[in-house]
Amino acid sequence: MQEIIFPQEIQLAEWTRGVNRSVLREMIAVVSKAGILSFAGGLPAPELFPKVELTKAFNDVLLSDSNALQYRPPLASLKKHIVDLMALRGVHCHEEQIFLTTGAQQGLNVLTRLLLNPGSEVVLEEIVYTGAQQVIFPLQPKIISISTDLETGMDVEQLSTNLALGAHPAYIYTIPQSHNPLGVTLSMEKRKQLVDLAARYGVPVIEDDPYGFLTYHGEPIPPIYSLNRDWVFYLGSFSKIMAPALRLGWIVAPEHLIPRLTVVKEAGDLESSALTQRAVSSFLGSGTFQAHMQKLNRAYGSRLAMMLDALSKYFPAEAYWSVPSGGMFIWVELPKEIDAVKLLDYAVAEEQVAFIPGHAFALPDHPQVQCRARHCLRLSFSNCTTEQIEDGIYRLARVINHF
Amino acid sequence: MQEIIFPQEIQLAEWTRGVNRSVLREMIAVVSKAGILSFAGGLPAPELFPKVELTKAFNDVLLSDSNALQYRPPLASLKKHIVDLMALRGVHCHEEQIFLTTGAQQGLNVLTRLLLNPGSEVVLEEIVYTGAQQVIFPLQPKIISISTDLETGMDVEQLSTNLALGAHPAYIYTIPQSHNPLGVTLSMEKRKQLVDLAARYGVPVIEDDPYGFLTYHGEPIPPIYSLNRDWVFYLGSFSKIMAPALRLGWIVAPEHLIPRLTVVKEAGDLESSALTQRAVSSFLGSGTFQAHMQKLNRAYGSRLAMMLDALSKYFPAEAYWSVPSGGMFIWVELPKEIDAVKLLDYAVAEEQVAFIPGHAFALPDHPQVQCRARHCLRLSFSNCTTEQIEDGIYRLARVINHF
Repeated sequence: MQEIIFPQEIQLAEWTRGVNRSVLREMIAVVSKAGILSFAGGLPAPELFPKVELTKAFNDVLLSDSNALQYRPPLASLKKHIVDLMALRGVHCHEEQIFLTTGAQQGLNVLTRLLLNPGSEVVLEEIVYTGAQQVIFPLQPKIISISTDLETGMDVEQLSTNLALGAHPAYIYTIPQSHNPLGVTLSMEKRKQLVDLAARYGVPVIEDDPYGFLTYHGEPIPPIYSLNRDWVFYLGSFSKIMAPALRLGWIVAPEHLIPRLTVVKEAGDLESSALTQRAVSSFLGSGTFQAHMQKLNRAYGSRLAMMLDALSKYFPAEAYWSVPSGGMFIWVELPKEIDAVKLLDYAVAEEQVAFIPGHAFALPDHPQVQCRARHCLRLSFSNCTTEQIEDGIYRLARVINHF
Repeated sequence: MQEIIFPQEIQLAEWTRGVNRSVLREMIAVVSKAGILSFAGGLPAPELFPKVELTKAFNDVLLSDSNALQYRPPLASLKKHIVDLMALRGVHCHEEQIFLTTGAQQGLNVLTRLLLNPGSEVVLEEIVYTGAQQVIFPLQPKIISISTDLETGMDVEQLSTNLALGAHPAYIYTIPQSHNPLGVTLSMEKRKQLVDLAARYGVPVIEDDPYGFLTYHGEPIPPIYSLNRDWVFYLGSFSKIMAPALRLGWIVAPEHLIPRLTVVKEAGDLESSALTQRAVSSFLGSGTFQAHMQKLNRAYGSRLAMMLDALSKYFPAEAYWSVPSGGMFIWVELPKEIDAVKLLDYAVAEEQVAFIPGHAFALPDHPQVQCRARHCLRLSFSNCTTEQIEDGIYRLARVINHF
């Protein structure tokens, strides 16, 4: 008779074997030490948080609204404000299409659970936001990887070829406006081509747009969603335009899918905080939000301009970088012989300056992509003063020149 | 040549076909109309929320802590307070075992993703909290269903037989203290048998304990976790002891699994609100929490006593119900010929009283279980005054007697 051996320790689900913690979030922990001038984290500037307005909003809501601390359905007035916000971006939608989430990360998680069968195909750019990787990889999909141009965005031709050759992805994920980490904005021409492909091949696009309201120069381009409401899911977030600790975002989705999204979201965290929803709605209704956004965009715009300026002044002539119109990030391609991971060690040790090496965003298990990202870095300009930016880029250039 | 037909509408993942929105949450929406005396929802009493204390805490934290609105790692001081809270329940753990979640629902979701392979086995009671069903069913597991006694809890013998016969569940899920919806507390003897089985067969137990701090009479029984730290995950929540809109809970887990939990949680919502973590920590550190808990337990204890009293006075002699020592719910078994769904219609129409029919909690696709729950109802006593409880049970009894 065969003896049955029972587990001696807790057995984990199979997908956990291939998935590790975000390299990015681990790196950020490492370089967040005191005394380091950090261009690493994707952090909004705390001194620009609307602290006074939010303190007032929380206070008002807690004292006046007896539902503020209770389980409550999604707040209608907040959905209305979001419809108005979307209209500022040229998107016409209605409240029944707005789905509130505990941040855009939850939005992407919920959409992924809704659309992606484990092991199926999904379209990602070669260089992709790590939070998206963390959502998608546990479902062990087949990744269709698309390259991205630093001036016009995702290579839509390449996508078209893949679809023509028979790919059946569950969705196409992209950050079309001020891409994280690439800083590029998808051109209007490519946006049109993208939604044409989506509709022709029946593949939804997830448009992740946390930086859409942060445009510092040039004419803002309307979201992909405005070009096609049937095949695009829009992901919005209050993290970058108000504050991350609100943990509040939204999806604009076809109305008939809202009940489906509700099922998945309830499984995740029942509902998003009634308190936070009310505080954000109160702030949006107070008439001070526009002034806040102007202040934010002015400050971030100066920081971006300073970083671009300093890169031109101090970085080697062979270096190349994206020129964002908004967002928080610049992507730099250094001369090919420079290994950005080793550079980070030197930069932290010798000049107390930090950044994120590009490979942190490169698709894992794609050696060529990893290789192409080795000499690249992501610089965040949002969480430093202009003085720190000029000084930090100067010091970083010194490390590169002595590398 | 075969013509390829592309989808004309957005294709959803396969699991969505079998899963619908929580019957419970839909019912609660229906019976939450004005003028209805509701024993339906599992809502804590808003008049007992520590509103003044929380308003002060949010205000203090927003004005004094520059990290309160930013992305931040889990708050060490809050973990410390949770260790102290657990000690009150007889659990000795340390901060490195505390994992903060966006409510206990997220805790269960994260543990399920960590432990359960799609299609594998899991142990549930026949009558099970709907939020757990919503997390678990999309992974399309094979359910090993266990019956539950209204006086001593889950039938551990039945579980033992299943395990001896070769079941290999990913985990055993239960609410051992003041079960939702059954109101029963698992006896100490059964707790010991349960952890023995867990350790012998190598099957972890998820101990969902949102009501553990709400005990109104009798000697509190320590959590299952206190009997075995290697095979039990403890799920805690601030929703019922402070306020649901905080969306904050915790897992006590083996320390070596915390990085794994982090990976899953980050995919879900990056992190739980730094602001809420700080406000809750501030309240727990203010020295007023114990007084709040005493007030809460006194009020809920009176409501429970009144409901038990009214049931004895007004309900038919053939009816049988659980006698909880805490929590928020009483489970009532009416005479078998009464269909609780039809009864609800009458109760709402004729007496403006609502409850949740038992079948809402019965495992779907288990016809016998559904059948056994047809004449049962869940009554919540937490969100009504004692006067409303006496009046409402009287009116409900009148409907039953005329049914």
